[in-house]
Amino acid sequence: MTKVITVGVFDLFHIGHLNLLEKAASFGDTLVVGVHDDCKKSKGCDFFYSLETRIRIVNSLKCVDKAFPYERVDKFAAENDFDVFVYGEDQNHKYFQETLKYCKDNGKKCVMIPRTDGISSSELRTGISNDS
Amino acid sequence: MTKVITVGVFDLFHIGHLNLLEKAASFGDTLVVGVHDDCKKSKGCDFFYSLETRIRIVNSLKCVDKAFPYERVDKFAAENDFDVFVYGEDQNHKYFQETLKYCKDNGKKCVMIPRTDGISSSELRTGISNDS
Repeated sequence: MTKVITVGVFDLFHIGHLNLLEKAASFGDTLVVGVHDDCKKSKGCDFFYSLETRIRIVNSLKCVDKAFPYERVDKFAAENDFDVFVYGEDQNHKYFQETLKYCKDNGKKCVMIPRTDGISSSELRTGISNDS
Repeated sequence: MTKVITVGVFDLFHIGHLNLLEKAASFGDTLVVGVHDDCKKSKGCDFFYSLETRIRIVNSLKCVDKAFPYERVDKFAAENDFDVFVYGEDQNHKYFQETLKYCKDNGKKCVMIPRTDGISSSELRTGISNDS
């Protein structure tokens, strides 16, 4: 039984998120998704949807076994066993960086997924915010 | 075995769509979702995502058994048996109106679901379009 994790913001849910999550699920038997709030700190941006809303949408997907609020990788790893960490090509937030370092240091398989061209939550969010 | 259908555009997928679809699924054993392209004609607006992308996202949901391109209710009904038609409070496009009339005329159970406050694909789309 291979357990996969991935982490991200998943704001303004789009096909790029779905591509990442379905691909992530294909690397194991279960997929758990850590949803976090780091964007505010690392990119100077705000979220369009609340953490609760973003978690609910990710949890509603067939390819996802469980989505949950994500903070520290060491706290998560102490309570959850997993084998593979999947991440998006364009991820750069601190939650991702800490998780990748932890996974490399602890012998987890790390898999990078190319981004989907032409779609970005950050760009969508900027468009909506500038209009309001 | 109670079969439920609903129809809609499902552009810029959001929590209001998920609320509608999960509620619709609760009225039967299976939920099929007709996704259509009428907005362009009835509201003078364009879609942010393609029909293919919108269908793929709706099909990825746990509560949905099948999403498909939707055009005429009589064509759909000739090929598919169903018991309940669920629709959103704010739906007014011609595909909805034709489907509602057909369902009422043919003794199907029709259920209206209240809209989710504070979220609308049309408003999201306007925000993004005005910025680009």
